[in-house]
Amino acid sequence: MQNGKDAPIGIFDSGIGGLTVLSAIRRHLPCEHLIYLGDTARVPYGTKSAETVVRYSSECAEFLMEKGAKAIVVACNTASAFALSAISSKFDLPVIGVIAPGAAAAAAISRKKVVGVIGTTGTIASNAYGRELKSIDSNIRVVSRACPLFVSLVEEGWLDNEVAEAAARIYLDGMRGEGIDALVLGCTHYPLLKGVIGRYLGDSVVLVDSAETTATFLSDTLEAAELKSDRPAGNYKIYVTDLPGRFERIAGAFLGEEPPSVTRVDL
Amino acid sequence: MQNGKDAPIGIFDSGIGGLTVLSAIRRHLPCEHLIYLGDTARVPYGTKSAETVVRYSSECAEFLMEKGAKAIVVACNTASAFALSAISSKFDLPVIGVIAPGAAAAAAISRKKVVGVIGTTGTIASNAYGRELKSIDSNIRVVSRACPLFVSLVEEGWLDNEVAEAAARIYLDGMRGEGIDALVLGCTHYPLLKGVIGRYLGDSVVLVDSAETTATFLSDTLEAAELKSDRPAGNYKIYVTDLPGRFERIAGAFLGEEPPSVTRVDL
Repeated sequence: MQNGKDAPIGIFDSGIGGLTVLSAIRRHLPCEHLIYLGDTARVPYGTKSAETVVRYSSECAEFLMEKGAKAIVVACNTASAFALSAISSKFDLPVIGVIAPGAAAAAAISRKKVVGVIGTTGTIASNAYGRELKSIDSNIRVVSRACPLFVSLVEEGWLDNEVAEAAARIYLDGMRGEGIDALVLGCTHYPLLKGVIGRYLGDSVVLVDSAETTATFLSDTLEAAELKSDRPAGNYKIYVTDLPGRFERIAGAFLGEEPPSVTRVDL
Repeated sequence: MQNGKDAPIGIFDSGIGGLTVLSAIRRHLPCEHLIYLGDTARVPYGTKSAETVVRYSSECAEFLMEKGAKAIVVACNTASAFALSAISSKFDLPVIGVIAPGAAAAAAISRKKVVGVIGTTGTIASNAYGRELKSIDSNIRVVSRACPLFVSLVEEGWLDNEVAEAAARIYLDGMRGEGIDALVLGCTHYPLLKGVIGRYLGDSVVLVDSAETTATFLSDTLEAAELKSDRPAGNYKIYVTDLPGRFERIAGAFLGEEPPSVTRVDL
C-alpha cells in the first residue's frame, strides 16, 4: 500500500554527499517533509561490490519505508548504479536515482556530443552513465574515469588545496585531450570540488551536478502520481548509522545552512 | 576452553593493511598456521565511532574463534585502540593488539624522548598510543596527528607521487618543528608510505612500524602459554567480507609474494 501525499519523501546516501540532493529538493519542493538517512557506519559504498551495495541499499530503503516514506530518492551514485532496480522491484512506490537525471542533463548540455563522467570505482565499473547516455543519444561518446580519492578529499575538508589540485591533475589529465564539453560529477561528494575541477578543465567544459535535475525529476514524478504535498511548508530530519556529531559539523558545507540535530540509528 | 598448539592463529584487520602484520608473523613464526580476516565490506574503521568499531571487531574475533583460533591478533590500530579489552574479556585466549608493541618499540628507539604518532582519526582521538608511551616512561613527550587521507592513498596505490608528497607535507609539517626522533606509523597501511614520509622527515627520525614488534610479542606470548606449534611448517588462509578479487590483486604489495586465493564470507 502506498503512503499518501502528506507522507515524507525518503532520501538516502552512503554518507554525507547526498545532502547536496536534499538541498536541491528543499529548494524545488519546499512544502515536502523530508527524511534523510546517511549510512555512515558503512560508508563508502563506492569501493564495494554490487552485491554488498544492493544489500546495504535495501536496508536503507527499508528504514525509510518504515518511517512512512511516499517516495524514495537514492541520493548516491553508486547505490543508484547497482541497487535502483532491486529497490524499485521490492517496494510499491516511486524510487528515483541520480544517474538518469544526471545523464539527461549532460546530454542536453553537450553540443560536441562528447561527455566526460567521473565517479567512484563502483559507479564507473557499472557503466551506468554510459548506458544511460547512449540510450538518450547513441551518437554521444562517453569518456569515463574513476576518481576514488576525491571522496576522501571532501571528507577531509581539503576542497581547494595543493593535494586536491595534484589529484585533479592526475585524474583529469586524460579528459582534457578527449574534447569533452560536459563533465558529469557522478558522485554526490564531487560538487564540493567544483572549484579545483573547473579550474583544471577550463571554461569550455560545463560541470554537471545531478542534484538539481534529480529534484526536478522527483517533482514531475510526484505530480504525475498525485503525491505532491499541499501543506504550506515542509521540514526535514536527518538520521545516520554512526557518528551523528561529526555529521552535524560537516553538514553545513553541503547544506549551506545549520543542519537540524542528527539522530543515530541501527539498521 | 582453549584451543591447543596445533590450532591456527587468527588475525584480523578492517581491510588489507593487516597483511603487513601477517607477513611479519610468518617470518617470526614459520611453523604456525594463520587465518586472516579482512572486513573489506565495512572498511575503513578509522573514521568510525568507538561503539561501531567494538561491534565490528567483536564479530571479526567471533569468526576467527569459530575457525578454531588459539590466539587472536588485532592487526588494526583503530580496532586495537577501541576494542582490545572488549575482545579480551569476551574470549578465553590470548588477544594481542598492535599498539602496545608499537609503543614499546618507539620508547626503546627514542633518545630525545620526543615521539611522534600518526594514525587514523579514531586511533589518534583515542590517545591509546599516548597512554601506552606515558606508562612505559612518563618523561616521553608525545606529538600526534591524524592523517586520514594516507589510508586512501595506499588503497589507490599512490605510494610515491605528487599527491602523496603534498599530503605528507601538510600532515607532517608540525612534526618537524617538535624535535621528534621516532615516529610511530600507527596504522597498518602507513608502512607502504615509508618512502614519502621518510624523505620529508629526514634521517634523524626513525619510522616505527609495529608489525615486527607485534610478531615478537606474539611469539613470546605463545611461548609463555605453551601454545607454540611444533609442526615443521605452517600455511595461511585469507578471508574477506567483500571483493576477494580486488584483495588478491593488491595483497602482493603488502605480502611481498603472491597471495593464496581469497575467500569471501558474511559476518
